[in-house]
Amino acid sequence: MASTAEIIAIGSELLTPHRVDSNSLYLTKQLNSIGIEVGVKVVAGDDEGCLEQVVRVAIGRSSLVIATGGLGPTEDDITKKVFARVLHRQMVLEEQILKDIKSRFLSRGLDMPANNARQALVPVGAQVLENPTGTAPGLWIEEGDCVVILLPGVPSEMKTIFETSCLAVLKQRSGNSRMFSKVLKTTGMAESQLDEKIAPIYTEYRNPVTTILASQGEVQIHLTGRGKTEKEAEILVNELSDKMELVLGEYIFSRGTESLEQIVGYYLLMRQKTLSIAESCTGGLISERMTRVPGSSEYFLCGVTCYSNQSKINLAEIPPLVIEMNGAVSSEVAKSLAEGIREKTGSNLGLGITGIAGPSGGSPEKPVGLVYIALATEATVACQKFQFGGDRERVRFWASQTALDMVRRSLI
Amino acid sequence: MASTAEIIAIGSELLTPHRVDSNSLYLTKQLNSIGIEVGVKVVAGDDEGCLEQVVRVAIGRSSLVIATGGLGPTEDDITKKVFARVLHRQMVLEEQILKDIKSRFLSRGLDMPANNARQALVPVGAQVLENPTGTAPGLWIEEGDCVVILLPGVPSEMKTIFETSCLAVLKQRSGNSRMFSKVLKTTGMAESQLDEKIAPIYTEYRNPVTTILASQGEVQIHLTGRGKTEKEAEILVNELSDKMELVLGEYIFSRGTESLEQIVGYYLLMRQKTLSIAESCTGGLISERMTRVPGSSEYFLCGVTCYSNQSKINLAEIPPLVIEMNGAVSSEVAKSLAEGIREKTGSNLGLGITGIAGPSGGSPEKPVGLVYIALATEATVACQKFQFGGDRERVRFWASQTALDMVRRSLI
Repeated sequence: MASTAEIIAIGSELLTPHRVDSNSLYLTKQLNSIGIEVGVKVVAGDDEGCLEQVVRVAIGRSSLVIATGGLGPTEDDITKKVFARVLHRQMVLEEQILKDIKSRFLSRGLDMPANNARQALVPVGAQVLENPTGTAPGLWIEEGDCVVILLPGVPSEMKTIFETSCLAVLKQRSGNSRMFSKVLKTTGMAESQLDEKIAPIYTEYRNPVTTILASQGEVQIHLTGRGKTEKEAEILVNELSDKMELVLGEYIFSRGTESLEQIVGYYLLMRQKTLSIAESCTGGLISERMTRVPGSSEYFLCGVTCYSNQSKINLAEIPPLVIEMNGAVSSEVAKSLAEGIREKTGSNLGLGITGIAGPSGGSPEKPVGLVYIALATEATVACQKFQFGGDRERVRFWASQTALDMVRRSLI
Repeated sequence: MASTAEIIAIGSELLTPHRVDSNSLYLTKQLNSIGIEVGVKVVAGDDEGCLEQVVRVAIGRSSLVIATGGLGPTEDDITKKVFARVLHRQMVLEEQILKDIKSRFLSRGLDMPANNARQALVPVGAQVLENPTGTAPGLWIEEGDCVVILLPGVPSEMKTIFETSCLAVLKQRSGNSRMFSKVLKTTGMAESQLDEKIAPIYTEYRNPVTTILASQGEVQIHLTGRGKTEKEAEILVNELSDKMELVLGEYIFSRGTESLEQIVGYYLLMRQKTLSIAESCTGGLISERMTRVPGSSEYFLCGVTCYSNQSKINLAEIPPLVIEMNGAVSSEVAKSLAEGIREKTGSNLGLGITGIAGPSGGSPEKPVGLVYIALATEATVACQKFQFGGDRERVRFWASQTALDMVRRSLI
């Protein structure tokens, strides 16, 4: 089997402005892991004529065609019918599927609606892929050199069936090329800066392939290596990533899937430190990110979102004079927030953030995007000044990202 | 021109597990607004052979083909070349484009890199669509009854060119069918419950078409009507939506694009009320959502994320005995949080949330997902108990959604 796949996502809702096909991202990741690349992706609606053409083209050009969606019990669910037509196969009733569906309904005390019997129809010669969590089974059909896999559109069912019934078989047949992928996540350096540092390294390699992706305050380096075995690919990837790590040092915060808030949590646990936060312009975002992590109550004591000046005085115990003399957006106030919340809550570390998220509230001296971030420890309090670009959401996110990174760096 | 379009997104990064094509969502929305539906979407990589086949099929079956991406100056940018080949057209150099690119570089004090001259090559007969914010212009090519539009992949450039140079012409040519869309956003009712209430209404109509989409704590009803004029379509949509609104009443929180936190903000402003929040299990999420809205400092005084019991006592001034006697997750503590933060900050409304977000921390009496939400006003304090399903993220989000909706309902 060749190593290029085609993914067809079926469903008219995927042709509206409201829904994007994301099943294909999961499938691509799984296929890549066994050395198969995706050559084309198609989204088609519930129109039989159009889908028939899409399927015909796909089977003609790709040696592996995976379709998701359209296996349900309603009239709109035309996937099986259309594939059967293109592959010149009759539809037959699979008694076992019918039994399974009936007993699934019975176990919930219901009779099977007549419509659901349609789900037991399969093209002749198709292998049924059991669906332990839903009524629509998947199907595996071989046609000459082409493998066709039909999966339900519900993500959890699609994943279960693919991992249980497809992945191992595809891996076995995908020949002797394996892939290994690794992600380095960095923060604190712009994409172009980072590229300048590592381009001299990665341009020496055609394998692994390096892809740089910037999003939401971090720059990710994706390394994908190919080898005869996964081990061989892994060794190639690690050789390259080691060289990059030497150059990037502390800018790398994760070598896997961890988020920055998870990494900060690890360090706090490891160092047995606790954190409290007094934030103004970020509006609770830093607290919210810290507490996304299960178990964060071990090291996160409390956060205050002190939007009004009065609440800065009441909750973080800033002397009113500090605000009066310096303005609410100032390094003095950021420091007082950090120290005040640390003392008030008895945490080891205190984080204080004040700034102007916009769109209004800026001035020539204190423009939108100006943010002060202070970190107080038992011994010291340090404050840094930042000027972030972009809209309100971006300023808030970058401020939260930078603040979390300051905590991380203080704990390394 | 027929009313079905095909969108091709070009770029190998769109065939990785990391990036999804979202340009097509914007284009679909724009096309729908002028009565054109999208029949198929394709994602293709930078492989010439494969793209050529994709383009050939698209031009053969669709009367409007819009391609995004692959118009840059590098070797990988093959879009124009491939379309020219499929349409049997030579590439010619457009002096005006070359001049524009050169002057764009000059204005930044740079010489044009030789590579960029490639961007001035266009297929014979193509109409150039000016790109005011980038170097790659768009192209409009007519081939028999088929209109082909090539746009850059950078979303801001793609949008500018489409709106400036394409939309009006397509509208004029798309015949005498127009569409009008409206969204009703509801919260507090499950999708199936809602469908039961409105199915008897919308099944009476083939036009407008009703689509129900559930996501993130809300259920949206999308109504799309067709008419000879936009006005005619709008009247049809409004007739149906009026009937739905009668049945759904207060469950509808928005008839447009507003988020729940925006609506809560409108009501607070309108009623001249201020809000403070003391939240535990939601970890700052409610404050963060409230302060996403520009201008929220008008009505949002402060939020505290009191994760530790001590911080509940310190920051929201809960009597220690209340926690001791009832446990931190109890209606008494939720009420004390709401009253405490209201009194401490002098706000009109105080919101208090305590619960178990999971995955750990649950018990048979107080399982994961148990959340108490209390709202204190000048006169009263009311508390409701909820049992949310799902993982940590879902419990936190639903708790925040439900709390915001309680504030909204108290202000209607």
